Amino acid sequence: MSEAGTGPEAERSEAQQFRLDFCFDGTAYQGWQSQPHGLTVQDILQQRMSTLFGGVPIRLQGSSRTDSGVHALHFVASFLAPPSPYIPDWKIKKALNRLLPPDIRILEAAPAAADFNARFSALGKAYTYVINTGTESPFAGRWSWQLTQCAELDAMREALRQLEGTRDFSSFTVDRKEIGSAVRTIHRASLDQFGPFLCLSFIGDGFLYKMVRGMAATIAAVGLGRKSPSEIPLILAAQDRCKAEPTAPAQGLFLMKVFYEGDSWQDFKLEKLPFYH
Amino acid sequence: MSEAGTGPEAERSEAQQFRLDFCFDGTAYQGWQSQPHGLTVQDILQQRMSTLFGGVPIRLQGSSRTDSGVHALHFVASFLAPPSPYIPDWKIKKALNRLLPPDIRILEAAPAAADFNARFSALGKAYTYVINTGTESPFAGRWSWQLTQCAELDAMREALRQLEGTRDFSSFTVDRKEIGSAVRTIHRASLDQFGPFLCLSFIGDGFLYKMVRGMAATIAAVGLGRKSPSEIPLILAAQDRCKAEPTAPAQGLFLMKVFYEGDSWQDFKLEKLPFYH
Repeated sequence: MSEAGTGPEAERSEAQQFRLDFCFDGTAYQGWQSQPHGLTVQDILQQRMSTLFGGVPIRLQGSSRTDSGVHALHFVASFLAPPSPYIPDWKIKKALNRLLPPDIRILEAAPAAADFNARFSALGKAYTYVINTGTESPFAGRWSWQLTQCAELDAMREALRQLEGTRDFSSFTVDRKEIGSAVRTIHRASLDQFGPFLCLSFIGDGFLYKMVRGMAATIAAVGLGRKSPSEIPLILAAQDRCKAEPTAPAQGLFLMKVFYEGDSWQDFKLEKLPFYH
Repeated sequence: MSEAGTGPEAERSEAQQFRLDFCFDGTAYQGWQSQPHGLTVQDILQQRMSTLFGGVPIRLQGSSRTDSGVHALHFVASFLAPPSPYIPDWKIKKALNRLLPPDIRILEAAPAAADFNARFSALGKAYTYVINTGTESPFAGRWSWQLTQCAELDAMREALRQLEGTRDFSSFTVDRKEIGSAVRTIHRASLDQFGPFLCLSFIGDGFLYKMVRGMAATIAAVGLGRKSPSEIPLILAAQDRCKAEPTAPAQGLFLMKVFYEGDSWQDFKLEKLPFYH
């Protein structure tokens, strides 16, 4: 089998582009992206992958930057794997999961096209923000924002509709140091209810820094009766961060899915709580 | 109001027995009970309560010992509160929650009868053990035992029935240094299914050291097809720990409820996953 180089036992004799799909509980990490200080998901993954590939440094390209404390139900990264006498491709997922802490779990590790890049090949993303309107709990508290009085669901739905479409989202992002347009398209902004939990889901072609948490906080203000849905267009038009609510806490946010060629955002449906998984 | 000493603003002029109801995620703790080494839930609570009562040491009596890593949806402790010019009784819950880390949450703090003792007044307990038969996840992994192949639900139910009643549970406990009978009554042992999660619930008048995790592991072995329900009576009769399965991991176990006078165990019903709360 290994002579033909096609069987599952085949070793890789050349560098190969890979796609890595994984999920993580972000509580313990300073976000995805490697930083001078603090532990990130990227650091942990690169360390363990280097171990797996016999000490060769591995550089991961992530689909997104996620902030400190944010979670991912489905994050994607790409990497170039060195020729490997160490481990066959089909064993990477299992071997990596054995090396990783339980708060990071590999869903899939598979060879990809040579030009696949987790960041630049991404066509869109879906995020879900979880609000707990029930009792405070040590279990849900890790993964939701506690807002007992957030009850105006119809108004929240109306406000979410106002965010859909192609708009300038300057009012919902912080730190506009990045040069470039703040225009993004939100294909769908919706609310799902699971018991006392309200889930705000946003599907779009791309999101600015802290934009989802800015929108979630503003929709929550509508749910609390402090803002009306009719204010959303005014906030958008102002292109002024001060008009929207301050950024919502990180622990309620989940990156749910990254869309690539062949995926359809219309197929995204939240069937349960992100952490009920 | 405070002159009459009956209003919510009244200060306590004498020591008062209290009942404290709370829940905790046990992941970060070495169990409930204070120990020479390591951090326990009791340590944290006593420290914070001492702060609350102006530096007076507070000693908590817990309803149960829970092992390192075990969780509680509803734990009860009693304590004698000193005369307090510091804080009115009705503010204890809120003030304590502000001082505590998010993985310990007070549900209620209320004056109790002078002879109330969380341990000795307890009439019974309910525990639930969570098995995840679905995909491995950084979210559920914290609070369940991953056993993808655990599928023989009818056999598990039959095995659980064999544990009900008044029996000697020596085969399911470790470290029988404690002198006394290993006879306990299990009122009900049942299985509930929530999506891919199997919940084993045990209601009894009392449980021996690591008994629930010993039973859970043995029922799981039935679910995996490695044991048959007809072996349960033989395991019980042997009064030999080696006949049952090794203790199941701590992270799947939840103390669900402690029953006191006025509570009925028949009313206990698992309506959702313990951590879906």
